[in-house]
Amino acid sequence: MATANGFGTFTQAEYGQRLAGVKTRMQKAGFDLIVCQDPANMCWLTGYDGWSFYVPQCVLVHLEEDRPIWFGRAQDAKSARLTTGLPETNIVPFSERLVQQPVEHPYDELAQLIRSRGWGKARIGVEMDAHYYTARCHAQLVEGLPDAHFANNHDLVNWARLVKSEAELVLIREAGAICTHAMNRAIEKMRPGVPQNHVIAEIYHAQSMGVPGAGGDYAAICPLMPVGEGTSTPHLTWSDAPLPDSGLTILEIAGVRRRYHAALTRTVHFGKPPQA
Amino acid sequence: MATANGFGTFTQAEYGQRLAGVKTRMQKAGFDLIVCQDPANMCWLTGYDGWSFYVPQCVLVHLEEDRPIWFGRAQDAKSARLTTGLPETNIVPFSERLVQQPVEHPYDELAQLIRSRGWGKARIGVEMDAHYYTARCHAQLVEGLPDAHFANNHDLVNWARLVKSEAELVLIREAGAICTHAMNRAIEKMRPGVPQNHVIAEIYHAQSMGVPGAGGDYAAICPLMPVGEGTSTPHLTWSDAPLPDSGLTILEIAGVRRRYHAALTRTVHFGKPPQA
Repeated sequence: MATANGFGTFTQAEYGQRLAGVKTRMQKAGFDLIVCQDPANMCWLTGYDGWSFYVPQCVLVHLEEDRPIWFGRAQDAKSARLTTGLPETNIVPFSERLVQQPVEHPYDELAQLIRSRGWGKARIGVEMDAHYYTARCHAQLVEGLPDAHFANNHDLVNWARLVKSEAELVLIREAGAICTHAMNRAIEKMRPGVPQNHVIAEIYHAQSMGVPGAGGDYAAICPLMPVGEGTSTPHLTWSDAPLPDSGLTILEIAGVRRRYHAALTRTVHFGKPPQA
Repeated sequence: MATANGFGTFTQAEYGQRLAGVKTRMQKAGFDLIVCQDPANMCWLTGYDGWSFYVPQCVLVHLEEDRPIWFGRAQDAKSARLTTGLPETNIVPFSERLVQQPVEHPYDELAQLIRSRGWGKARIGVEMDAHYYTARCHAQLVEGLPDAHFANNHDLVNWARLVKSEAELVLIREAGAICTHAMNRAIEKMRPGVPQNHVIAEIYHAQSMGVPGAGGDYAAICPLMPVGEGTSTPHLTWSDAPLPDSGLTILEIAGVRRRYHAALTRTVHFGKPPQA
């Protein structure tokens, strides 16, 4: 049964299948161990679901370890207990004093953890271009594991995530219903002279309320709403200026159900349409 | 005058002062050039304001260059034109084909840009632990500039940003008013049995509507609302389960005005307070 914050969204059998698929890919790619810091990969592998990705953290998968290992900030270890169902030995907190520390770094302790498990000479795959896997995370890890062999794992877990299970498809369809609902609410609200942020308030409200039977969650992206001249570039957000009497506005939004997103873009024209 | 998306929020004189302060810090730290990928630093240095930080991009500051240089994805160059007021020569797009490319990388072209300006042997300060400055960004840059000297700039621009100007304080006070408004709306809505996501919908609505004279913007963090057992850890979000008849809920939210945040945390107890 699904409980707060996603714990229980998927069966342990499904997590087992995900892990088995990832291990097959690791063997093929020649890795003993992968270090996954991408928040979506951490969640997909274990269920871990906390807004803690602004500090270094990760999930380790080793070929010879039955379950993934969560590594993160001490105050977030309880989130791991509540959301993952991992055994206590596979939840490893790092010291609070390492948070945003100029000299030492959380990944010094990650290197110690890896050595303490006897994996100091492992072939390690890391997510070289993952958001939040910073240059310093990598540098400290490499420095702390001089006998290991590092390589980019080239989105190994992201590729494994690409084919969705039936349980995931249920959530994505709910996300789609939420997205449609939010887009309709936005378009109803869009009239010349309405402040842009009033439209955004409707979108966020609808995204969070969700649809009957499926409450909404936060999106990985805020609503994008370029207006007028701004429609010639894709990633502008909004202001509190009024919508124009004529011209274009683009809306790009997501609906989200337990971290699963469905996205939609629509173009709205105000005033008399231009001649072809 | 402030226009859509923050362009014009600050005077060019203020951007000039910011740049001068940063150059003084660069000289003291022994850098000719710094590469700033932290989205907040890019915005503070130039006004650049697009939701494009999920691809590599940056602002360069060189001691001998009058203005910063924006480097980013080709389709975002127009955002730079609309939000920064930088001269066209200081807006340098990278090729679209480099986006999420397994072999080449946008920072290959950044290295070319730096060499083409005659800075190939520069002492370069990078933001080693900045969000989005990934391990791969750094590796490609170092590989592309074999004669340069790289070092961690240790949050040089973040430290410069710490002392706020009068114009910034105006925005932070508005953000504070928005945050108070959103917190009050949330607490009014919080009753046993109300689905958690209904409270969140009120918060997002209030955050976006803002207060009279100051519309709200998106926050760098979603509302945090651990409930019951979840209050023993800080970074859990919400579900669509109802609020409990008794026990604790914590709310941690921000109000935001043109990217400036003010944050507030409150604890709400339902039911009969426990005996001391």
